[in-house]
Amino acid sequence: MDAQVSLRYLGFMPRYALKIEYDGGPFAGWQRQAQGQKSVQGAVEAALARLEPRAHTIAAAGRTDAGVHATGQVAHCDLERDWDPFRLTEALNFHLKPAPVAVVQVARVPDDFHARFSAVERRYTFRLVSRRAPVVHDRGLVWQVLNRLDLVAMQAGAAYLVGHHDFTTFRSSICQAKSPVKTIDEIRIEELPYHGGTEIRFHLRARSFLHNQVRSIVGTLERVGAGGWSPEEVRDALAARDRAACGPVCPPQGLYLTGVGYPTDPFAG
Amino acid sequence: MDAQVSLRYLGFMPRYALKIEYDGGPFAGWQRQAQGQKSVQGAVEAALARLEPRAHTIAAAGRTDAGVHATGQVAHCDLERDWDPFRLTEALNFHLKPAPVAVVQVARVPDDFHARFSAVERRYTFRLVSRRAPVVHDRGLVWQVLNRLDLVAMQAGAAYLVGHHDFTTFRSSICQAKSPVKTIDEIRIEELPYHGGTEIRFHLRARSFLHNQVRSIVGTLERVGAGGWSPEEVRDALAARDRAACGPVCPPQGLYLTGVGYPTDPFAG
Repeated sequence: MDAQVSLRYLGFMPRYALKIEYDGGPFAGWQRQAQGQKSVQGAVEAALARLEPRAHTIAAAGRTDAGVHATGQVAHCDLERDWDPFRLTEALNFHLKPAPVAVVQVARVPDDFHARFSAVERRYTFRLVSRRAPVVHDRGLVWQVLNRLDLVAMQAGAAYLVGHHDFTTFRSSICQAKSPVKTIDEIRIEELPYHGGTEIRFHLRARSFLHNQVRSIVGTLERVGAGGWSPEEVRDALAARDRAACGPVCPPQGLYLTGVGYPTDPFAG
Repeated sequence: MDAQVSLRYLGFMPRYALKIEYDGGPFAGWQRQAQGQKSVQGAVEAALARLEPRAHTIAAAGRTDAGVHATGQVAHCDLERDWDPFRLTEALNFHLKPAPVAVVQVARVPDDFHARFSAVERRYTFRLVSRRAPVVHDRGLVWQVLNRLDLVAMQAGAAYLVGHHDFTTFRSSICQAKSPVKTIDEIRIEELPYHGGTEIRFHLRARSFLHNQVRSIVGTLERVGAGGWSPEEVRDALAARDRAACGPVCPPQGLYLTGVGYPTDPFAG
């Protein structure tokens, strides 16, 4: 039993939940990498080590891929000092600079809170911009397509994916989840005005997602919106339970982990 | 009379209005610079020269400062070929890459249309984010302040500035306009939710603005929102007609030229 674990068992290490925002662009993903590649986890752990010098290992609700953003990632850490949450937020943000990672909120949580295993819901939003002229201010923050998209057709295709299904078609071949069966609680697609074009936002909600599931779904629905697939072909692709039946996986830069649900919201009040 | 002018007089050079979007961050401003500094005007003129090799000089409705963005700048150019507006848009965007400048729309306009002198309204929006944690995705796209702002107080302060006034207090000491008298038709301030904070948007509308007028106004109103100034002190500062009575000029990265009004909208239909 190492020092950190024994201190925890003795009840000396308070646990904190961190709500984290990041631009995924410069990172190899959330997860700390063996070979010196930059990760968001590594950046936050390095900031923690500036406050309490030792090795830190934090767990997060969503292990986002390279290039994927977050506005509401949640992680937890154990610290020796009894930090005031506001002061801890400020200190972490000070040490995180200039990385595009910010701790938006910190909350003291019970010892049995686990950012990943306590989570009962993940919420993702995918931003897609459909216009001819290259995007300027949202470069790296949206996926741009040149063709127009049929919102109603995409909504019809998405409807086949909501609910409890075997999502073998819509998960990466390297996905490590034991089962391909998941329940998607919601896929809401909205259309917003965008200078000289249209922005489409896909909002997905589930207890948990498979590896590349959101990007596989959005990439397939984009094909439906463009007219290459009919909505019914989404139903057939799902029924095939075959990765080869999936549409193209869309790129990561439009994807945002926007929130994580827990039985009790650690950040409320 | 040079070749371009004589061709225009003979009626051979059709005129085009360009609606332009840009990220002002990497530029020394709209206006072409003598000493090799990057300008938006220079970038667009260089793209035009790839289509019709010769010197191009374009005029724009708003000569935005270094770091100021646009989503609806309007410029005009004269070309030798009778370009299809869609093809001209595509060709310009092809040659503008990778600069963060995009031509969103092109329209054929009458020979007497002048992007600057025909304009009867300029619209600007200033984005301000008030929160403690550093902004991540909107870095370079908003002005961040750490304090909370009182929306109602800012609206009360802004109300004194709407209308026909001598804006000597709110213009740069190097402003070259003949008169400091301008009419501001609208200052609308709205508050939007922003993760862990608040976004304030200032929407200003006038026939034309003085140099640094919008940033002088927003910087002063921020002081009102923070409680450092009362709304009535804005009235007094305006009445002083003294540049020294102005609040701090806010930074450029939150400012966007969002639109230009003409007696007839060249981009309609």
